[in-house]
Amino acid sequence: MDNVVNIGLIGFGTIGSGVVETINKNIDLIENKVGKKVKLKKVVDLDISTDRGVEISSEILSTDINDILEDPEIEIVIELIGGYQPALKFILMAMEKGKHIVTANKALLAKHWTEIISSAQKNHVRICFEASVGGGIPLLQPLNESLSANHIISSYSIINGTANYILTKMSEEGRDFDDVLKEAQKKGYAESDPTFDIEGDDTAQKLIILTIIGFGVYIKQENFHVEGITNITQEDINFAKNELNCCIKLLAISKLVDGKLEVRVHPTLVPNDHLLSSVNGVFNGVYLVGDIVGPVMMYGPGAGMMPTASAVVGDCIDIIENMEKPVLYGPSTTTVKAIGNITDLKSKYYIRLLTDDRPGVLHEISGILSQHNISIGSMTQKQQDETNGIPIFMVTHTALELDMIEAIHKIDQLDCVKDQTHFIRVL
Amino acid sequence: MDNVVNIGLIGFGTIGSGVVETINKNIDLIENKVGKKVKLKKVVDLDISTDRGVEISSEILSTDINDILEDPEIEIVIELIGGYQPALKFILMAMEKGKHIVTANKALLAKHWTEIISSAQKNHVRICFEASVGGGIPLLQPLNESLSANHIISSYSIINGTANYILTKMSEEGRDFDDVLKEAQKKGYAESDPTFDIEGDDTAQKLIILTIIGFGVYIKQENFHVEGITNITQEDINFAKNELNCCIKLLAISKLVDGKLEVRVHPTLVPNDHLLSSVNGVFNGVYLVGDIVGPVMMYGPGAGMMPTASAVVGDCIDIIENMEKPVLYGPSTTTVKAIGNITDLKSKYYIRLLTDDRPGVLHEISGILSQHNISIGSMTQKQQDETNGIPIFMVTHTALELDMIEAIHKIDQLDCVKDQTHFIRVL
Repeated sequence: MDNVVNIGLIGFGTIGSGVVETINKNIDLIENKVGKKVKLKKVVDLDISTDRGVEISSEILSTDINDILEDPEIEIVIELIGGYQPALKFILMAMEKGKHIVTANKALLAKHWTEIISSAQKNHVRICFEASVGGGIPLLQPLNESLSANHIISSYSIINGTANYILTKMSEEGRDFDDVLKEAQKKGYAESDPTFDIEGDDTAQKLIILTIIGFGVYIKQENFHVEGITNITQEDINFAKNELNCCIKLLAISKLVDGKLEVRVHPTLVPNDHLLSSVNGVFNGVYLVGDIVGPVMMYGPGAGMMPTASAVVGDCIDIIENMEKPVLYGPSTTTVKAIGNITDLKSKYYIRLLTDDRPGVLHEISGILSQHNISIGSMTQKQQDETNGIPIFMVTHTALELDMIEAIHKIDQLDCVKDQTHFIRVL
Repeated sequence: MDNVVNIGLIGFGTIGSGVVETINKNIDLIENKVGKKVKLKKVVDLDISTDRGVEISSEILSTDINDILEDPEIEIVIELIGGYQPALKFILMAMEKGKHIVTANKALLAKHWTEIISSAQKNHVRICFEASVGGGIPLLQPLNESLSANHIISSYSIINGTANYILTKMSEEGRDFDDVLKEAQKKGYAESDPTFDIEGDDTAQKLIILTIIGFGVYIKQENFHVEGITNITQEDINFAKNELNCCIKLLAISKLVDGKLEVRVHPTLVPNDHLLSSVNGVFNGVYLVGDIVGPVMMYGPGAGMMPTASAVVGDCIDIIENMEKPVLYGPSTTTVKAIGNITDLKSKYYIRLLTDDRPGVLHEISGILSQHNISIGSMTQKQQDETNGIPIFMVTHTALELDMIEAIHKIDQLDCVKDQTHFIRVL
């Protein structure tokens, strides 16, 4: 029995089925790697009657969580039910029983990090969560290991497949946001309520975890700027492409600036010669800069049944190979302070305005920008579609975001401005 | 003393200096990570008088290898002298003394893999070599860990910065091979004798290591096809770009086909919508496909003082954290057979011919191709520069390489063919 590692799986949905399929398919590889027998001893879900399309013995299935929590032979618990409760309760109970944890639950980790990690340390168990950020992409483990001689200086991440799919399709096919969103929903790339993905919340939760592992800093979501992609129009994408040789990506950014850590999520103009511009469709990419190694990027499928299962089972292997090692986690003794306050940001900005077609308009707008120390790098005025107003596109030189916010607020009060003015930060 | 890990460094050249600088700079980070004191106790080189531009106590420097090999307090030996001897001798001696090894020596590992790994196993020591492939890019560790639930199905790698720099410059600036090579030599991106990089030998050595770790298969360089980039002309790059929307990259490929592993190094036409086409200049990229995760790419600086040092010091941290773990290495019990015989390859091909400008030429050439079961997908004939002959460019449908070789051999014997015909495989 000593030579068998027993695993319990909570949650037999899409990812859970992927985990069962991965273990079924590659059990020889896994056992060869760890030098032990590996057994999925119990799978618990409220619904164990639906056919998941994977081979599983009915004896393994149970609706009773205690079949996992109270079984002393189960050493590793995989949590894949998602959400806050009862996932948190189950994880804490399992850790108290001395069980190691593998989870893909980004929402839970992002919100309850301190409590979960304290419990892991108190109970001397490991908790692994490679699947919680970037799905199947090796990310947290390389940060913890191959790159561990580095201070990470900055990270720029495309970590939401839904948002990236929508932006990619808008760019490639010249279609509008709503149109592409509907298609994404039809294809299963977007939820029927897509808010969580398109408003940046999912990206923010993943960024919280990435910032803990990469920078040793834990910042809660309410303390940094999170902005989604719902305001991005075909005009923005076209102007970025044709006039600026850029694309628009929803980026999760953590970046050391003068000893402080900027943390933010927002759509960003990315130059087309930057590798992140090639991360298209549902794929994810994380571009990191280390103080020793320089820039590194990891790319791959950021979600989905099998890619996520790959990371979950990889974490199980990691735990089996490192059970005897001391457990060290969490924000190090770093003194770096996270700043989520976007008003302190210095950036170049792309601005889209809709104005009246009459003399003096530009004079008024440029006057306000100038009063707020914002200098215009380039400007284009389009003559199309005069019924709704004249669109003006500008790119500023580097400016302070607080100045931008105040300037745009004043500009939007001008009579000659016909619609709310939008701006997008430039990488 | 128990709480100090002592390291000995053999080779105080460029990478060695980078390692010293990394340890100087990030010692707090490293010690915090491993929970022990870490000390670079001795640095041995034949030349210890040259100023390497890094801070180091003169007491640490020595010209006597026995100051490392005979010091029982040194637990980890970093070998950075490169080449076969005396590197092999030093590594074997250090392992016999129970010391763990970190090396960036791809040539040595590729040639003497079996001997080195047998010694590591016999002496119960770890040997890590992340820096030997892809410089600072996390690659071997993710393959061993995050991706360990996967069988790797294929890998396509740009792992020689010199060759990639030359091909990138030829493409971006429309310049000839010789011209760009000279510039690369001036900038230090190419050696004064560039053969090793441009003929594919360096790429082949790295592919051998990648194939061991990714596929569990050890194949020697003499047993697979290795082709460099010296035959690539501006015409090829232009045609690929303008007619096929492709670029040309020197790829190291390992790929499972019908249960056998194709291993090969050659210039390849890569579609511009493939992520590898964005790996430019001296950067490296490794594109892997796992049976569970699907496609994943790792990107970063494939060489250089600090990136390589990042991987070397990362390996030291890995060893310190895993000293107590059992040592498992090397080709697993895989039954996969490597096939280096390029004649068995099935691929699409790009062909460049130079012919007379007279009736019947195309008839003769297409006849030979047809006799060898090679069907033409597209063809372009250029009318420029008639004095030297008429260039003809073709792309075939999938064909057997043996047929290609035989057909080209016959074509080159035709009177109407004015120069040796070249072909490039298409990804």
